[in-house]
Amino acid sequence: MNIRRYKKNSEVTYALGATVVMEYLLNATSLVQAIIIHPDFNSVDTKERIISICKLHNIEYVIEAKPFNIISSKENVYVIGVIRKKTMSIKDASHVVLVNPSNQGNLGTIIRSSLGFGIKDIAIIGTSCDYYDPKTIRASMGAISRVLIESFNTIEEYISRFPNNNLYPFMLDGSSELNKTLINKPFSLIMGNEATGLPEYYKTIGNPIRIVHTSEIDSLNLPIALSIGLYEATRQ
Amino acid sequence: MNIRRYKKNSEVTYALGATVVMEYLLNATSLVQAIIIHPDFNSVDTKERIISICKLHNIEYVIEAKPFNIISSKENVYVIGVIRKKTMSIKDASHVVLVNPSNQGNLGTIIRSSLGFGIKDIAIIGTSCDYYDPKTIRASMGAISRVLIESFNTIEEYISRFPNNNLYPFMLDGSSELNKTLINKPFSLIMGNEATGLPEYYKTIGNPIRIVHTSEIDSLNLPIALSIGLYEATRQ
Repeated sequence: MNIRRYKKNSEVTYALGATVVMEYLLNATSLVQAIIIHPDFNSVDTKERIISICKLHNIEYVIEAKPFNIISSKENVYVIGVIRKKTMSIKDASHVVLVNPSNQGNLGTIIRSSLGFGIKDIAIIGTSCDYYDPKTIRASMGAISRVLIESFNTIEEYISRFPNNNLYPFMLDGSSELNKTLINKPFSLIMGNEATGLPEYYKTIGNPIRIVHTSEIDSLNLPIALSIGLYEATRQ
Repeated sequence: MNIRRYKKNSEVTYALGATVVMEYLLNATSLVQAIIIHPDFNSVDTKERIISICKLHNIEYVIEAKPFNIISSKENVYVIGVIRKKTMSIKDASHVVLVNPSNQGNLGTIIRSSLGFGIKDIAIIGTSCDYYDPKTIRASMGAISRVLIESFNTIEEYISRFPNNNLYPFMLDGSSELNKTLINKPFSLIMGNEATGLPEYYKTIGNPIRIVHTSEIDSLNLPIALSIGLYEATRQ
């Protein structure tokens, strides 16, 4: 199979590893263009299962070693899914909103947590790392195959599409403590960039939320802060 | 300065980056054996601050490029702290307890979250990844300089040292939902290995806790599950 190293402008991306590939085969079958299985893949049951799904849906599959050197030379990967990129539109629902996220691993972890708390619509505002990058897909453990992700140029553009959502920007100096604040549905939990957080302006667009922590750390890690927000918002 | 690549049996470890080095200089000064500053380091204020602390405490410092090639060739690092390893004893308090943690980055993130929720004593049970590894130190953003970490061979050894702690093993099929369970202090939040979780046996030693999530994911990421546990335990 003719395979190229992933680039942001590639028409396809790659799901690396049997678990992630299986998520795509089961949840987003129409996006799977082809499957590549390494000749040394020795999990017979999984291999047979993958092949039977491919046959059922007319998905091309090959057993070949060379693509693994091109795409995932460093990792312990025996199955690759070639995945079509597809423009998505998020639905009217509660959302996770990420402003300028810059780390692909964090983005994948966030997608996994969001799905874990039942939020399947993720908005990305402004410049972002590439959410189709195989690193994001792998960090999401395949959860990305079950969610919708849509990019917006500005938060205003997002707000005008979803005027009924209650906006909760998470800020280190937010005026409302998370555990004392009622999070009304449909909610938008808004998180800033890993290094810079949200601009001051976000305080004016919604109810700014603070997760109380000791002064011994500057901030919680981004996927952790968001996950605590999701836990609290869905617990209530 | 004569510097070697880090190994698990090295007598020293390395704090990479000015932020992390500063944490050690401020919180665990006696552990800092030496500081290496890259000739290209152009943050003048930080450089002066580091040097003045070194002078005050008689800590050796050099300005030299070569050690950076040996220790952190890939990363964007301009300051290295050479840190003495020191055996620690955790105190009688609430604890985070990690059973067979295997990922150094996760371990660092966990240390940062623990400190963020005021838990400064971390027990590690059984085989573990090396918590002195520079990757762990860096992922903790230096928080590791403010906590105590102690290893125990078995959970029984840990329990016999801390018989008054209330044990809460986190398990995917734990009988108590986190948000409906009173977490009594002093608590021990016990988390299993990233891939395998906790053995069944742990259900018998305490109150097994479940974080409710949708069936669309297998589990939450380990540092996220623990951080949600810490949020809930300290929120109550």
